[in-house]
Amino acid sequence: MQYTIHAITHNKWDNSLPPIMSISDGDIITVETKEASDGQITETSTEKDLSKLDFSRIHPLTGPIEIKEAEPGDAIEIEFLEFKHKGWGWTGVIPGFGFLADEQYTAPIDLQGPALKIWKVDEKYAYATFGELKVKIPIYPFPGVIGTALPYRGKFSTIPPRENGGNMDIKHLTVGTKLYLPVFVKGGLLSIGDTHLAQGDGEVCGTAIEAPMEVTMKIRLIKNVGLTQPVFITKKVKEMEFNEYISYPGIDPNLWVASKKAIKGIISLLAKYMTPVEAYMLASVAVNLRVSQVVDVPNWIVTAYLPKDIFEKDIEII
Amino acid sequence: MQYTIHAITHNKWDNSLPPIMSISDGDIITVETKEASDGQITETSTEKDLSKLDFSRIHPLTGPIEIKEAEPGDAIEIEFLEFKHKGWGWTGVIPGFGFLADEQYTAPIDLQGPALKIWKVDEKYAYATFGELKVKIPIYPFPGVIGTALPYRGKFSTIPPRENGGNMDIKHLTVGTKLYLPVFVKGGLLSIGDTHLAQGDGEVCGTAIEAPMEVTMKIRLIKNVGLTQPVFITKKVKEMEFNEYISYPGIDPNLWVASKKAIKGIISLLAKYMTPVEAYMLASVAVNLRVSQVVDVPNWIVTAYLPKDIFEKDIEII
Repeated sequence: MQYTIHAITHNKWDNSLPPIMSISDGDIITVETKEASDGQITETSTEKDLSKLDFSRIHPLTGPIEIKEAEPGDAIEIEFLEFKHKGWGWTGVIPGFGFLADEQYTAPIDLQGPALKIWKVDEKYAYATFGELKVKIPIYPFPGVIGTALPYRGKFSTIPPRENGGNMDIKHLTVGTKLYLPVFVKGGLLSIGDTHLAQGDGEVCGTAIEAPMEVTMKIRLIKNVGLTQPVFITKKVKEMEFNEYISYPGIDPNLWVASKKAIKGIISLLAKYMTPVEAYMLASVAVNLRVSQVVDVPNWIVTAYLPKDIFEKDIEII
Repeated sequence: MQYTIHAITHNKWDNSLPPIMSISDGDIITVETKEASDGQITETSTEKDLSKLDFSRIHPLTGPIEIKEAEPGDAIEIEFLEFKHKGWGWTGVIPGFGFLADEQYTAPIDLQGPALKIWKVDEKYAYATFGELKVKIPIYPFPGVIGTALPYRGKFSTIPPRENGGNMDIKHLTVGTKLYLPVFVKGGLLSIGDTHLAQGDGEVCGTAIEAPMEVTMKIRLIKNVGLTQPVFITKKVKEMEFNEYISYPGIDPNLWVASKKAIKGIISLLAKYMTPVEAYMLASVAVNLRVSQVVDVPNWIVTAYLPKDIFEKDIEII
C-alpha cells in the first residue's frame, strides 16, 4: 500500500508514544517533515530570529509510525525513494553550539554566531552568497534524524544519535540508500525529521542546509536478525562527487584536535574571501572530514576536503 | 630538465644529510622508491618473514633531493604525474602495530598477526583471495611518505607525520594531485618513499598495499608564501569511486572509539567470509573512515564505508 503521513510531530524519544499511523511490510510511505527549528526559521528570517530560538522545540519528528508485526529482534529496512523540498533552506551558527563553539580561534575572530544563511533551492542546487563568492551546492536530501523507538522507558533528547539511529546526520542516507534499523519494541515505532538538503561529513557548525520536505520511503520488515545498531548500503551519489578539492590535513595525536586543525585550516583559506563565520557555515555544508590514517604513532591525520566546483570563481590556496 | 633518481635511501628525518641530487624549479623527476620494509618482504614472502622484520630498516626514503634556490619561507609544489609498479604488493599485520593492536576484540579473536597477503597487480587492479572471496581492488598509487627536511637538527623517526609532511598516508596524493610542502631549510631537501598501490582512509591495520615503484613528479618552487604545513589540491580519482558501499556507523562520545566501533563493525560483517585478521587487512586497504558528524552532543559518528564492487560475489550484511 501507499500512504501519505502528515507532520504530526514529537521531539523526544519516548517508546510509550501512540503511533500516528500503522503500516505493513512492503508499504511505501510519503512523510511530511518539518525542518529542525519547527518553523522558527523561515525563508525571510534574520540572525535575530536565530538568537531568539526556543531550543525546547528543536527536532520535531514525524511519527511514531508502527510497522505491523515488528517484534524486538527484527530489523526495519528503509529504502529512500524520493525527497521533495520547498525551494529554500537555512544554515546557521547558534551561539554555544557546534564543533568550534568553545574555541577562541587564533585572534579574537568571531565564529560564535548568531549567523544565518538562507539558501534558494531548485531541482539540482542550493544557491547562496558567501562574502564575495557565489556558491552553488548540488543537493542530495536526507533525514538528519531517523530512528526506531529506544528499548528503555522515558523521554530522551533527540540530540545524540544512539543504537536506534536517531540524529545520525549521515549524508549518505539519501535516494538509493537502504538503511537497516533495529526493532527494540513491538511495532518498531519509526520517526523521521530534521531533513537536510546537503551537508559536509562532519556538519561542523552544527547545521546543514536545513529544509522541510516530503520523504518517500519503502519500508520492509526483516524478521529475527538481532541487529544491534544501524547499518546501511549506499550507492554512488553523483551529487556528492566533485572534480577538484582543496585539502587540508589536520595532524595531531588526538583525533578530535586533528579534526579541528583540519577545519580551521580550511576556514583560514576561505577567510580571504568571506568572514570566518561564513567560512564556518560553508565548511558545515560542503567540507568532508576523512580519517586519513590512525596508525602512524603518535600523529593521526584527519583531512578536510573542500570542493572547488561549488565556487563560481577560482579559489587560491597559497 | 628531466632526471631519473635512483633509490639511494635514508630512513631518519635529518636535515644535515647531503643531497643525493640537485634540481631546479620546473624540473621533472622520476624517482625510484623501495617498499616500506626495504626488501625484507618480497613476492615470495610468508608470515614468518613478517615476524622476523627488522624495524630499524623500515621506511627507506629516496633523497634528500635539493631544490636550488629554495629558502625557508618558500613552498615546493609537487605534481604527481605517473607511478610505475613492479606487478606485486603486500599487506601485513605486524604484532603490536595497528589501530586495533591493543584490543581484545570481543571473544579471543586473533587480530594480532603476524599475517601477510601478497597481491598480484596489473595496470588497473590488485588481486588477492580473502577466505572464500576473490578480491579485486582498483589501484591509484601514492607515496605513504613524502616530506621536506624538518626545521630542527637531529635524527627523527619517519613514523609520525609532521609539519614537513612525512608519513601522511593520505591516499589522495596520487596522479592529478598537487601537494604543497613548506621549505624549512635551504634547498628544501625532499624525500619520498613507502609507496602504496591502494589504501582505505584510515589504513587501519598499519599497512596499505605496499609496493616498490618509480614515481614521476613535476617540482615547482613557490617563493615567500610562509606555508606552515602540507596542503594539497586533488582531482576526482575514478579508481577510488565505487558503485556501492556497505556502511557501518561507529557512535561514541570519543572520536577514536567511534572509529574503532566502525571498523570492528565492518570486520564483524566480513568475518562470515574470512578470518578476522584477513578482514582487518582488507579494511586497511579498502575501507574508508569518514567523520559523519562531530556536533550531536555527546555522541559523534565515524562511519566505515566498505566498497561492494571489490568482491566477485555479493556480500550479505544482515
